[in-house]
Amino acid sequence: MGKVRLEAFSDGVLAIIITIMVLELKVPHGEKLSALKALLPVFLSYVLSFVYIGIYWNNHHHLLHTVNKVGGGMLWANLHLLFWLSLFPFATAWMGENHFSPLPTALYGTVLFMAALAWLLLQRSIIVSHGEDSLLAQAIGKDLKGKLSSLFYAAAIPVAFARPWVSQFLYVLVAFLWLIPDRRIEKVVAGR
Amino acid sequence: MGKVRLEAFSDGVLAIIITIMVLELKVPHGEKLSALKALLPVFLSYVLSFVYIGIYWNNHHHLLHTVNKVGGGMLWANLHLLFWLSLFPFATAWMGENHFSPLPTALYGTVLFMAALAWLLLQRSIIVSHGEDSLLAQAIGKDLKGKLSSLFYAAAIPVAFARPWVSQFLYVLVAFLWLIPDRRIEKVVAGR
Amino acid sequence: MGKVRLEAFSDGVLAIIITIMVLELKVPHGEKLSALKALLPVFLSYVLSFVYIGIYWNNHHHLLHTVNKVGGGMLWANLHLLFWLSLFPFATAWMGENHFSPLPTALYGTVLFMAALAWLLLQRSIIVSHGEDSLLAQAIGKDLKGKLSSLFYAAAIPVAFARPWVSQFLYVLVAFLWLIPDRRIEKVVAGR
Amino acid sequence: MGKVRLEAFSDGVLAIIITIMVLELKVPHGEKLSALKALLPVFLSYVLSFVYIGIYWNNHHHLLHTVNKVGGGMLWANLHLLFWLSLFPFATAWMGENHFSPLPTALYGTVLFMAALAWLLLQRSIIVSHGEDSLLAQAIGKDLKGKLSSLFYAAAIPVAFARPWVSQFLYVLVAFLWLIPDRRIEKVVAGR
Repeated sequence: MGKVRLEAFSDGVLAIIITIMVLELKVPHGEKLSALKALLPVFLSYVLSFVYIGIYWNNHHHLLHTVNKVGGGMLWANLHLLFWLSLFPFATAWMGENHFSPLPTALYGTVLFMAALAWLLLQRSIIVSHGEDSLLAQAIGKDLKGKLSSLFYAAAIPVAFARPWVSQFLYVLVAFLWLIPDRRIEKVVAGR
Repeated sequence: MGKVRLEAFSDGVLAIIITIMVLELKVPHGEKLSALKALLPVFLSYVLSFVYIGIYWNNHHHLLHTVNKVGGGMLWANLHLLFWLSLFPFATAWMGENHFSPLPTALYGTVLFMAALAWLLLQRSIIVSHGEDSLLAQAIGKDLKGKLSSLFYAAAIPVAFARPWVSQFLYVLVAFLWLIPDRRIEKVVAGR
Repeated sequence: MGKVRLEAFSDGVLAIIITIMVLELKVPHGEKLSALKALLPVFLSYVLSFVYIGIYWNNHHHLLHTVNKVGGGMLWANLHLLFWLSLFPFATAWMGENHFSPLPTALYGTVLFMAALAWLLLQRSIIVSHGEDSLLAQAIGKDLKGKLSSLFYAAAIPVAFARPWVSQFLYVLVAFLWLIPDRRIEKVVAGR
Repeated sequence: MGKVRLEAFSDGVLAIIITIMVLELKVPHGEKLSALKALLPVFLSYVLSFVYIGIYWNNHHHLLHTVNKVGGGMLWANLHLLFWLSLFPFATAWMGENHFSPLPTALYGTVLFMAALAWLLLQRSIIVSHGEDSLLAQAIGKDLKGKLSSLFYAAAIPVAFARPWVSQFLYVLVAFLWLIPDRRIEKVVAGR
């Protein structure tokens, strides 16, 4: 019961985040092609963030499959994740409007990194309450992908000040890594 | 279970899209009738887009009736559809504020066209996972209406540069074609 | 099943409408009391509209208690209602920012009137599909309150051009009439 | 049944409130660190309000565990609570943009105080309809924490005009008091 409401609230927040990001695509005053072209960087960063929020929604969906009970700790670990995700519209727009320049690129990486940490914390809080031999603990194993992503984000932050395009490349790369939903959980759940 | 959450998330995103479009109806500073009149094109494009999002919600509702299982491919096909629908507020406002001029009209058609393609892809991904003799495959048959709509949108894009009102007429026409919910699915489900 | 999703979508749209209205309470630049005072008319119109959307949500909730099946007609009658309700944020802000002057007051009344008509249409579409001896048909009877409200709104529109405060009084009066949820439906459902 | 929809609507409104607050973090025009620094007070007030809305969502979730039936009074008590919570984005942004100066700090306290009163009213309306020996009545007992919080908010309002930082300290302190979800209800529900 608690789980249903946790899912509904998270879905609500994720649905709003993914949709209000588009409000940063400010409608231009002119009707010329140049007006549209000026929006291209904002549009590209919107696409990237849309994919990221989609990935989080998708994996959140898989993650909660493994949950039987919801305690206070897990509720707050989930809200903590939603907090960092709620900063996506801001970080996305700032990066897009400044044409992927160093500081905004680093900030975007910071938000990605904090969200990834919050995700690991949420996983941990579920494993703590469900046991080390729980479905989730088996499914994620050593969670190489999760830890690797955090590492990539962490690397992208300082790199952004020297070569912002390398950081952008890392953000896109990690997104591709995650586009495939977490088969590990799917497999363990299916084999139950 | 996965289906319930897919529906809930899609409903959330569609509800937000349909509602934030109204935020582009900027409250005018004056209190005169002329201030309202200036908003008429934006209002008309809002009405058109409201109907389109309503149609997508309605048909999405019918489409998911035929779904038994939700896989990763279908989740992403659905997010892909939501991505193009999320561009409606932008395309709607740009077209309205520029009084249905050529380029904005063509862009609106492009968003309609991409959303229609995304819809066909979503249908396809459902049929692939449910089989060619599934409920949905029977229901849509050759899907003349879906293919015709895409054709009309595709035609409206170049036409917009010569005769934007013809494109507008096509957008309204296709909306009318779809105002009637997809009886084909209703029939097959009912006859199950 | 269809009903659950209709409720969920309507709740989503109503929740968004009631919440984005507050975005029209623009954060003032100064930190003085005068900055707050200038917002008072917008705040008051926000309160009125919050109550109205609350009433619609409340009665919608009661209305759907009487529904067993959802058809295409009812889906569109419901979307039509949501369309007029989606104009509340605009009409509310325009009326508040212009200090309840004639034209904005009349427009607010027009939106109230159209929403009331859409409500009657939705009731009608439910009765048509459920039969004249259905629960809802019995519950609303001659629907004096619904028809009276529409009459009051209709009267308030022309009156706004001569005495806007009389129209405001009518809007507040009708809100009070409806603050009490529709006991008629509650009674008939309970006595089932 | 009514309870499910009440929860869904409240979750929707809370999800939107918590997410649109971030829209007040206006994307700055420059790409320099100074542009980010200028946003720090708005960010800090966003964090505080995010935690408060999280607390309300969390406790609302616990509160409704104790509810069996939903009447008109409770629906309106709930909408009344949502009304005050809907003013959080405004009060948060005004306080942040004015760097926690006296009047905005007092207004923030007023919104907190009114929301706390609305919460007590909602509790009361549930106890009235479920009986003085109901689960909730037992769970909250004398509700020291609820009453103490209201007292702190009430004290913070006048204090803001002399020492705004003391009021800020009180807001943070009460948030910490509530970060722990309402164990009293959890215990009584578990012991049922």
